Amino acid sequence: MPEHAPDPAAAPGDVFAWIDDAERARERAGLVRTLRPRPASSPLLDLASNDYLGLSRHPGTVRGAREAVERWGAGATGSRLVTGTTELHAELERELADFCGFEAALVLSSGYAANLAAVTALSDRGTLVVSDAGNHASIVDGCRLSRADTAVIPHSDPDAARKTLAAHAGRALLVSDSVFSVDGDAAPLAGYAAACRAEGAALVVDDAHGLGVLGEGGRGALYAEGLAGAPGVVATMTLSKSLGSQGGAVLGPARVIRHLVNTARTFIFDTGLAPAATGAALASLRLLRREPERAGRAREVARLLHERLTASGLTAARPDAAVVSVRAPSAAAALRWAADCRGAGLFVGCFRPPSVPDGISRLRLTARADLTGEEITRAVETILSTAPPGAADR
Amino acid sequence: MPEHAPDPAAAPGDVFAWIDDAERARERAGLVRTLRPRPASSPLLDLASNDYLGLSRHPGTVRGAREAVERWGAGATGSRLVTGTTELHAELERELADFCGFEAALVLSSGYAANLAAVTALSDRGTLVVSDAGNHASIVDGCRLSRADTAVIPHSDPDAARKTLAAHAGRALLVSDSVFSVDGDAAPLAGYAAACRAEGAALVVDDAHGLGVLGEGGRGALYAEGLAGAPGVVATMTLSKSLGSQGGAVLGPARVIRHLVNTARTFIFDTGLAPAATGAALASLRLLRREPERAGRAREVARLLHERLTASGLTAARPDAAVVSVRAPSAAAALRWAADCRGAGLFVGCFRPPSVPDGISRLRLTARADLTGEEITRAVETILSTAPPGAADR
Repeated sequence: MPEHAPDPAAAPGDVFAWIDDAERARERAGLVRTLRPRPASSPLLDLASNDYLGLSRHPGTVRGAREAVERWGAGATGSRLVTGTTELHAELERELADFCGFEAALVLSSGYAANLAAVTALSDRGTLVVSDAGNHASIVDGCRLSRADTAVIPHSDPDAARKTLAAHAGRALLVSDSVFSVDGDAAPLAGYAAACRAEGAALVVDDAHGLGVLGEGGRGALYAEGLAGAPGVVATMTLSKSLGSQGGAVLGPARVIRHLVNTARTFIFDTGLAPAATGAALASLRLLRREPERAGRAREVARLLHERLTASGLTAARPDAAVVSVRAPSAAAALRWAADCRGAGLFVGCFRPPSVPDGISRLRLTARADLTGEEITRAVETILSTAPPGAADR
Repeated sequence: MPEHAPDPAAAPGDVFAWIDDAERARERAGLVRTLRPRPASSPLLDLASNDYLGLSRHPGTVRGAREAVERWGAGATGSRLVTGTTELHAELERELADFCGFEAALVLSSGYAANLAAVTALSDRGTLVVSDAGNHASIVDGCRLSRADTAVIPHSDPDAARKTLAAHAGRALLVSDSVFSVDGDAAPLAGYAAACRAEGAALVVDDAHGLGVLGEGGRGALYAEGLAGAPGVVATMTLSKSLGSQGGAVLGPARVIRHLVNTARTFIFDTGLAPAATGAALASLRLLRREPERAGRAREVARLLHERLTASGLTAARPDAAVVSVRAPSAAAALRWAADCRGAGLFVGCFRPPSVPDGISRLRLTARADLTGEEITRAVETILSTAPPGAADR
């Protein structure tokens, strides 16, 4: 790989000299990422986080975390199979499964771990895993980590899914995000489910961006499509987006969950989710039950943002959930645009290669349910006034 | 795969029928794992958790979590590259690196994620990753996930490491646990480091079971061996064992950490560690600085447990850290032994296939620094009085 070729000027025995070369290559391409720690109270208007319902700092969610750490301690202290399973985990699993319409649930330490668990435990050598081209990195890594053959199909293409499944004789799995994080578009879940039923395949859907936003009261994309609890359907999700906490979960038939408990390496060989995160997610879930209007409000804010930005000539896919993704003319322009927004008091996400599969850089806006009308107006005006040349006519 | 062959009696279209077959196979082999949620206050004496220093419920650690959730909210709200990096993360990273003797640190949501990050980001196609046969599942999965060639060498064999590295011309990486979780034995880190220096390879060490237990004041196995901060050395660790919290970290030269920020998928595509877990780990770390005797006490408890159990004829490897692993005659006997201990008020771990690479089942005891003399005596007496036939003469 040319960018990693040894630098003849490097010190002898410098085993990481190649890292300097890689760093220089990133600098030349304008693709350097750095961490910018934020203070506890930021003056910025946040349209960059995944805190879709604004629950991360909700007093009820915070109290859930605080009470859990006081009652259960700061850590789970071990694998869920040894000392790491508390009654609090079991309570969250029961209520999450019930809320989303599944028989059982299993909580892991992250959504990433949940996707690795679901894909690897439900496939083996000889299994075909059909994966949507727009899937999240954690699904892609789950496919890589499994012993299965992976077939990547074009984005949101049920016909391709069906044909690919039909050409395979043995066990098969179709894996898709419910809402794709780059453009905020929804997957054709009904079509994917029909393809799976027709071809005898299981369907695994990552509802990270659907939980709390889609379906009645935020019960998620699978609930919305009448697919929650179907015998061949498994959902994965995060507790770190709408629920404002940390962690991930796999939901499905009880036998699937038992199978994961026995075989999923990211479950077995990881410390259980910390009590504070478990308690916070549980508190948020109960809040969501009591205030089901939050989900619809997040979708409404997304619609408003999209409408006003595209009316002014910007290019953005129609949002199916709470992500609004605005195209930028280039990676450098996207970076400058996001920085200019920040300078004007607005925190927006910036997706550049390699995080965008099509190479098109974007501003990524999160339509939080708790944004006020005034905040939406301020966000739109800031984005428009900082738009780079070429952004409005693509 | 015969155990996954379709069950002819299964309902047509039952895509998960193979799971029932797999479940029956586990039942026949006596290898079924089930979750047993524990209450907040357990009457059991805990020798099963990884809470080596007893900090998970320490008032200072709990306060660290509580204050963090109140100040920063329940979740990090996004990837560390977007909204997920707080000044609290940066503070923990600075203090952890400083404590362990490294230039820089990066905090991730689990030790699993940290190992995947380190192994995948420091290797690519053409890199040779040399991996100790006793390494943790997360290192094994890191190797699988990387595009590198992996060579598994015999357990704790620096000569094999050197020969394997010598036979490879390009970039190379040697990866090892510092303390192996199954038998609690320490890796030959000095020998591994010498092999790496001689052959121009990087050394990655997972110090999950060394941090807080080994080295001056618990600064870890690499510090103990004079390898902390060496130019070609990278450490990974967990915040969920000695520090009683959740999360993982990678420590190393600043350029390595910058490289991870830019390329490690389990860092980039994961939500940042929750504030409560970050704050708890930071509080524990400061506690460890103030009370450096905790590390030595954990090692002393391990020595006492090992001495008394082996004096009574049980077989256990000499503990190099705080894990004491007692051999059982069979998987079924180990399971019954652990259950009998539990019945007598003692919670011990039970390692069975496939969690033990050599197929030998074990009781796994954690020598917590805060065990009293009376508790140690009670633990030893319980283990001896419940020992199965054959346990004492192997």
